[in-house]
Amino acid sequence: MPHINLGNDLPGMRGLMAFSPATAEPMNLLAEILLRSNDGLTPTERELIGTHVSYLNDCFFCQHAHAAIACHYLNSDKELVDDVRENPAAANISNKLKALLNIAALVQNGGKYVTPEAVAKAKQEGATDKDIHDTVLIAAMFCMANRYVDGLGAITPTDLSTYPPRAKQVAENGYGNHIFSAKQPTAQ
Amino acid sequence: MPHINLGNDLPGMRGLMAFSPATAEPMNLLAEILLRSNDGLTPTERELIGTHVSYLNDCFFCQHAHAAIACHYLNSDKELVDDVRENPAAANISNKLKALLNIAALVQNGGKYVTPEAVAKAKQEGATDKDIHDTVLIAAMFCMANRYVDGLGAITPTDLSTYPPRAKQVAENGYGNHIFSAKQPTAQ
Repeated sequence: MPHINLGNDLPGMRGLMAFSPATAEPMNLLAEILLRSNDGLTPTERELIGTHVSYLNDCFFCQHAHAAIACHYLNSDKELVDDVRENPAAANISNKLKALLNIAALVQNGGKYVTPEAVAKAKQEGATDKDIHDTVLIAAMFCMANRYVDGLGAITPTDLSTYPPRAKQVAENGYGNHIFSAKQPTAQ
Repeated sequence: MPHINLGNDLPGMRGLMAFSPATAEPMNLLAEILLRSNDGLTPTERELIGTHVSYLNDCFFCQHAHAAIACHYLNSDKELVDDVRENPAAANISNKLKALLNIAALVQNGGKYVTPEAVAKAKQEGATDKDIHDTVLIAAMFCMANRYVDGLGAITPTDLSTYPPRAKQVAENGYGNHIFSAKQPTAQ
């Protein structure tokens, strides 16, 4: 049960955003720019970074919501998404993405945990300054989102079958332009 | 030295925002809404929450930048700001703000650390649902900002006299509408 009366029963971030539309707008805009850009990192790579950070923060809602979006982009390769979510070093992904996921995990611990060596490794594997910037900011943004969701005790559906339909909508339409649609699935 | 080539020598968040203006815009908008609203919590209380969270995250730039803004609002009562920054339980502030700063500290640890008891205590001291929402989101936003700043190794002036002039500008003009002004002080 949420720690405050949200006045709605929408799951996860959406319930919070319906409670506070003024802050939802810039948060959705930031997510749209950071997670759906194709400049450097792909939207799939961006969602995988967010999924891994949410896993490290033990945020059930965010890790499954964003895993489902990554899974949609990857034509339902759930095994790959689960591998990256839990143990990217052993996953079947590029060395560049592994190095960036390592930086994201350091950011999850705290900004000062990022080392010149971790950054040098990512550059060596082909990451640009923008890739590294975006990785750090995506990881940082999820440290915000995970805390917002769990810090207010947002409604978290445990039925994993409820995540893919919403993921499809976000993958196809983006963040923020339909969050209050009456047709969105509500919490179970 | 920053981990990436920012192409500028602006200190802290500003150097990062000049590197990535597309993400700077929604981040500044979120800060403006969350930190300068007078709806419920005052701008002073909001800055104090951000200052304390930045202290807990050991982010030198953010804790001093936002302490300076709180100090500006409080007519230069640096002792009070320092008390709240480091040990709010013993500071000369309301029990309501103490309870909210306790929630903010729990959020800094992680969203799941927020307990029904901590929330009940804040409500008992007069905090509304919106106050609690804003406290959680302010704390979460600073967990993002602190990681962004330190995760990219942003330039961090150690001369504390450089913070108040910038704080005055933010206090008077807000976040985001002058971040690229040529007249801003640069890193020392």
